[in-house]
Amino acid sequence: MTAEILAVGTEILMGQIANTNAQYISRRLAELGINVYFHTVVGDNAGRLEETLKRALSRSDIVITTGGLGPTKDDLTKETISRALNRNLVLHEDILEKIKNYFEKRNRKMSEINIKQAYLPENSIVIPNPNGTAPGCIIEDGGKMVIMLPGPPKEMQPMFDETVFNYLRQKTGIMLVSKMLKIFGIGESDIETRLMDLIENQSNPTIAPYASQGEVTIRVTACCSNHDEAAALLSPVVGEIKSRLGDFVYSEDGEPLEKVVFNLLKENRLVLATAESCTGGLLAGKITDIPGSSEVFERGYVTYSNRAKAEDLGVSWDTLNKYGAVSRETAVEMVTGLKNKTGASAGVAITGIAGPGGGTEEKPVGLVYIAAYVNDNIVCKKLQLSGNRERIRNDSCLNALDMLRRLILGMEQR
Amino acid sequence: MTAEILAVGTEILMGQIANTNAQYISRRLAELGINVYFHTVVGDNAGRLEETLKRALSRSDIVITTGGLGPTKDDLTKETISRALNRNLVLHEDILEKIKNYFEKRNRKMSEINIKQAYLPENSIVIPNPNGTAPGCIIEDGGKMVIMLPGPPKEMQPMFDETVFNYLRQKTGIMLVSKMLKIFGIGESDIETRLMDLIENQSNPTIAPYASQGEVTIRVTACCSNHDEAAALLSPVVGEIKSRLGDFVYSEDGEPLEKVVFNLLKENRLVLATAESCTGGLLAGKITDIPGSSEVFERGYVTYSNRAKAEDLGVSWDTLNKYGAVSRETAVEMVTGLKNKTGASAGVAITGIAGPGGGTEEKPVGLVYIAAYVNDNIVCKKLQLSGNRERIRNDSCLNALDMLRRLILGMEQR
Repeated sequence: MTAEILAVGTEILMGQIANTNAQYISRRLAELGINVYFHTVVGDNAGRLEETLKRALSRSDIVITTGGLGPTKDDLTKETISRALNRNLVLHEDILEKIKNYFEKRNRKMSEINIKQAYLPENSIVIPNPNGTAPGCIIEDGGKMVIMLPGPPKEMQPMFDETVFNYLRQKTGIMLVSKMLKIFGIGESDIETRLMDLIENQSNPTIAPYASQGEVTIRVTACCSNHDEAAALLSPVVGEIKSRLGDFVYSEDGEPLEKVVFNLLKENRLVLATAESCTGGLLAGKITDIPGSSEVFERGYVTYSNRAKAEDLGVSWDTLNKYGAVSRETAVEMVTGLKNKTGASAGVAITGIAGPGGGTEEKPVGLVYIAAYVNDNIVCKKLQLSGNRERIRNDSCLNALDMLRRLILGMEQR
Repeated sequence: MTAEILAVGTEILMGQIANTNAQYISRRLAELGINVYFHTVVGDNAGRLEETLKRALSRSDIVITTGGLGPTKDDLTKETISRALNRNLVLHEDILEKIKNYFEKRNRKMSEINIKQAYLPENSIVIPNPNGTAPGCIIEDGGKMVIMLPGPPKEMQPMFDETVFNYLRQKTGIMLVSKMLKIFGIGESDIETRLMDLIENQSNPTIAPYASQGEVTIRVTACCSNHDEAAALLSPVVGEIKSRLGDFVYSEDGEPLEKVVFNLLKENRLVLATAESCTGGLLAGKITDIPGSSEVFERGYVTYSNRAKAEDLGVSWDTLNKYGAVSRETAVEMVTGLKNKTGASAGVAITGIAGPGGGTEEKPVGLVYIAAYVNDNIVCKKLQLSGNRERIRNDSCLNALDMLRRLILGMEQR
């Protein structure tokens, strides 16, 4: 079964936004074993849209459109597709009600132009839109499927996930189930070396490593017809990978590192405090991103200046003058001071040179010291990171989180 | 003059990456007044590529391809285009040398498969690639232009900027120059109302407002043949928009709000400290994102718990118990305590309910108090924000930055 994705939107052709909808949908279609052979973007032009749609229908089994379902006169998708498929548009009173309610709940009045959003091609399957006014629809026509979705990703994605995915799954009869192994502390080429024979001999499940922002994800995907079969196929492969990569694997469910640390803090009834210099609040920001983080996070310090390090954390001026702000000595005093001040059962301090300026020959850009403790167990690591300011700050946060993870789990620091 | 962009790459069709090249190229073509009517993505398949290419040539003046210029057998772009245009591929000895040097500089040996990258269609214009092995090329054929670029953005973008852009500029004889007005504190529909006649009667320059992440950008674009002419066209329009929108406009150069505030702090020799609760370090993170921020930022507190508010900032337990952590009283005590503790000449404190949990009927999710001061001038604002946790935290940071901006510039708070 083949599919193609047709995005309707002049703003994409003008380069104002990238076609991320096509990426999202393609990835989900790949999970169903559906091949995608074309992505196309056209503007809000009825002629070019109809021409492109007809070509798509002639060569693919499934055509998925995004965009052009809004209330304005530039929104042409439904009208054009109905014309191409020779169907009338019919008014759905219940959808009209829903649209009215959508506006009332937001203390606004529905405008007349919104009425057209309650019209759908006859005999189509409605795709409800919990996050906007335009429902989508699925049309089955002579063995082909045309699926219309709105443009805004926040509306499109839940509609795809909640309605379209299951619809297509039933049509294909197969599914792909993945485990996302998340890995920190070992590079992509090292991983490929350790897993060489597994990767070369893969068939089902497939094994796909990819690197992103200082970490590596390995996607292990089983193609099967139900979840039990998936588990049976995935389990031995995931187990083998984990045994070869050891404690570099921090999640098999695709969770970000801060979530894993959050869970570990919570399960172990630990409370965390942070002291950041070069990362400037980013680490505390990542942790507090998680709803409920107040159960495990008490406070953070952004001791950007030497004075703040001395006043807030009790780092001695002697140490600052003798070894400098970016030193093992200062990092350890920061975290010890943090512990004494807050009484938190877990803590981490980061001090370093994020760049692009501030580096010297002895202390180059990317030099970062991280000190961490859980209860009475304290460790300190020296890092020489590379990349731009954003990359150095982000990698510092990841290293800090991984140090906490290893401390809590009683694993060796790497 | 019309153009279309054809990306060659199975990894895009599988959803592994988004087609950001098309976005980049489209934006730059828009600067030249070249209309883009189609984006297409095809896989590494000679038949589909040739069919799509021929259609593109039949309907557009300029066809730009990305991808498929690598050394492997899946890289088919040059061969396919040469065949479609009935041209031979010829070996460029100088390019072959360059490729050999590229590998030697990296202590590697050129492989035999790389040799094909030194072949280009006869009579094409070479586009040098300073960041990779595959040069691109421009073919002029019967009034049409075919431009081939590599897939990796780090290679493609500099080649487009350094060679293709100027080539096309000479062909069109025109350029577009934009001013990006950044606006905070007034919504998109309000703006459109105030600028209604300007927007309706626009011709040259064009005026395009768009909303993104809690702010609005207005792009004013003049089409002309040189920079002086652009300035003469843009200046009166930008001036009129600024006079109608007043102090909601914080930049006409597309700078983010934190950069504008950084500049204001620096010019006025102010030093900033922050005290964050619900934003958890994000505000300090945004400010310290800017290289050189240590000149204007001294320290930040992430007083996530009541205890931290009391211990670090001297907020009284009476106030916390009587009015709660999320209250005007607490916000003001946080920022006053911050001032007393740090002596910083500027400061801001944020306390609120980011959600999704934590809200009550009297204090719903999205309730945020921000208190700020510059020297002896202190203000406090109550906000009722909406959206998810990420949105509420980000909007709180933007509001905090805008309050500082208005304090420094002596503008009314809104």
